[in-house]
Amino acid sequence: MEFYNDLKLGVLGGGQLGRMLIQAAMNYNVSIFVLDPDVNAPCKEFSSEFHHGSLNNFDTVYNFGKKVDVLTIEIENVNTDALEKLESEGVKVYPQASVIRLIQDKGLQKEFYKERGIPTAEFFLLDNKEELHDFESFFPAVQKLRKEGYDGRGVFKIKSKGDIEGGFNKPSVLEKLIDFEKEISVIVARNASGEVRTYPTVELDFHPEKNLVEYLFSPAQLSEKLEQEAQELAAKVAKEIDIIGLLAVEMFVTKDGGILVNEIAPRTHNSGHHSIEANITSQFEQHLRSVLNLPLGATDIKTNAVMVNLLGEPGHDGAAKYVGLDEVLATDGVGLHLYGKKFTRPFRKMGHITVVDKDMEEAKRKARFVKNKLKVIS
Amino acid sequence: MEFYNDLKLGVLGGGQLGRMLIQAAMNYNVSIFVLDPDVNAPCKEFSSEFHHGSLNNFDTVYNFGKKVDVLTIEIENVNTDALEKLESEGVKVYPQASVIRLIQDKGLQKEFYKERGIPTAEFFLLDNKEELHDFESFFPAVQKLRKEGYDGRGVFKIKSKGDIEGGFNKPSVLEKLIDFEKEISVIVARNASGEVRTYPTVELDFHPEKNLVEYLFSPAQLSEKLEQEAQELAAKVAKEIDIIGLLAVEMFVTKDGGILVNEIAPRTHNSGHHSIEANITSQFEQHLRSVLNLPLGATDIKTNAVMVNLLGEPGHDGAAKYVGLDEVLATDGVGLHLYGKKFTRPFRKMGHITVVDKDMEEAKRKARFVKNKLKVIS
Repeated sequence: MEFYNDLKLGVLGGGQLGRMLIQAAMNYNVSIFVLDPDVNAPCKEFSSEFHHGSLNNFDTVYNFGKKVDVLTIEIENVNTDALEKLESEGVKVYPQASVIRLIQDKGLQKEFYKERGIPTAEFFLLDNKEELHDFESFFPAVQKLRKEGYDGRGVFKIKSKGDIEGGFNKPSVLEKLIDFEKEISVIVARNASGEVRTYPTVELDFHPEKNLVEYLFSPAQLSEKLEQEAQELAAKVAKEIDIIGLLAVEMFVTKDGGILVNEIAPRTHNSGHHSIEANITSQFEQHLRSVLNLPLGATDIKTNAVMVNLLGEPGHDGAAKYVGLDEVLATDGVGLHLYGKKFTRPFRKMGHITVVDKDMEEAKRKARFVKNKLKVIS
Repeated sequence: MEFYNDLKLGVLGGGQLGRMLIQAAMNYNVSIFVLDPDVNAPCKEFSSEFHHGSLNNFDTVYNFGKKVDVLTIEIENVNTDALEKLESEGVKVYPQASVIRLIQDKGLQKEFYKERGIPTAEFFLLDNKEELHDFESFFPAVQKLRKEGYDGRGVFKIKSKGDIEGGFNKPSVLEKLIDFEKEISVIVARNASGEVRTYPTVELDFHPEKNLVEYLFSPAQLSEKLEQEAQELAAKVAKEIDIIGLLAVEMFVTKDGGILVNEIAPRTHNSGHHSIEANITSQFEQHLRSVLNLPLGATDIKTNAVMVNLLGEPGHDGAAKYVGLDEVLATDGVGLHLYGKKFTRPFRKMGHITVVDKDMEEAKRKARFVKNKLKVIS
């Protein structure tokens, strides 16, 4: 590849994932074009061309795609018809339209797992809330909207029939509630040459209410056997789905020592943020390498890490202020990542912090300190 | 500090050092304003405001400085009169005008070392070439232009009187040629609160002709005693010179086991590039922390590293092409940094590569492979 100075990579979505992709792409002389519906998107100032428009509008996405050599995403809620037309006209769309279409619909996703022998929680597909009554013996369960769930939205826990009233009256997946031991994630990269590389497994600790990652630990505390199973399962999903690009595979380790695939995302992912500081190749550089069909980078761990999401404080809505930053920055091993968002709102992802330390317990202690100290208010 | 979303940091110079500073500043929500005489400067696309103009023109620098909260540099050849006026009007200029003024003149620099008891090679100050004849018994020596030497320019080796004819006919420093064991560098950060942190010492391998860093090894292979001496000496220079910001201190380890200060640079430096991948806090983030008077970050090594500069191939002048990149990227541990320069010319700094590996010998082997394989041609 000799064209480095001219290559245009289009990104659908201009949020923090796009912003961190730009940081990586600067090292490759790749021009990043961004399309986002928010005129103040975090990527705006740093993209070679920023286009303001809807990711769901056929013409907007199609016209944007015609300007670039390779098109990728940082959010999966995009117009796949436009992507298919672009593909048919020779634009390289990675991940492919078919992959995004499958992942946009949690129902299709679950059926895909079943068909391909990928272990996942037992499930049923529902069209409306009424049908929930047919599954009372199946509870406790989790109802997930088939479409447009994102960042913890579109998920509802049903412990018993008393909860049915609060359920979604829309096409959804009803999944057996898994009483898991831990939640883990493996990021897989795959390029057009078929090369596949996985990241060492991480462990996720979710916010009890908001279904957002609160702490991430890298590496996960797993037996060698489970670690290998998780790696193999994640790679299998990526190959079966035939993705080119990154795939984040979130899994449950069940109490009886099995592994089930929970959800997948066809892009850089919150569960890979630590890789910027803690792995040989960051997930953002790896994404770039995979969609440009470059050799994939090593994923080995350089150091233990704990990642903490920095969410907008409940009760605060408006221009963002950061409280406690000085104490946090005075803590050795803290890597700050603010996302350039002018306004905060409750639980909005405003940034993240990666704490690295040779000693994992020390890293955890520091991460808890960071979480208690650093607040985003208005 | 709560103002993160509004802070404007001005940078005099928009080359690769500014570009890597922007990559770091994105994580702090700091807006970077850049002034550079090249309309295609590597920072252009990524700065919040790019101003095109001379760094040596009083009005240009002054007017630019009035737009920002804090002003810093990525090259020391700038108009210091304008910086002094800005300081007197309350703009925070870090490093300070007085520090830059001192470092701009290698003669003043050497006299400063002498005055403060900082060990350095014996020297004399000359006004013209004619005077070289008075120092025949002092040869072998190195003649360095007092002003405007940069990136290996302005340095001339005089082994014997036969070389005098090729010397500079300008104010210069004539320095005893040091028959050194190795060249090392320590980067020191100091903030306005007086906090000081040094990076572990690195070892430099220079291009025999061009006086540009060819390989950098981190950490340096030094005895514990020498490592400590190098750290202390570098910190002493930073304190004596009273700098706020980063100071790169290049030193010689002499054959009899002494350390002499060779040259200093009041900014991020080629000898700190490896810190992006290999140390807890990169020199670019550290520079930001120091000029914004934030707590300084830990400098510990995460992994061994070898850095290789990617220089324009001799005989090539024009639009840059990169040959051998695929083989290089297929090597585990390679971190690529291209600088976004459209045109190459012989020995122009076009990028760098940092190879990380647990095993230093393996890192060196890979770095040699990279150096032989990767070429920038036109």
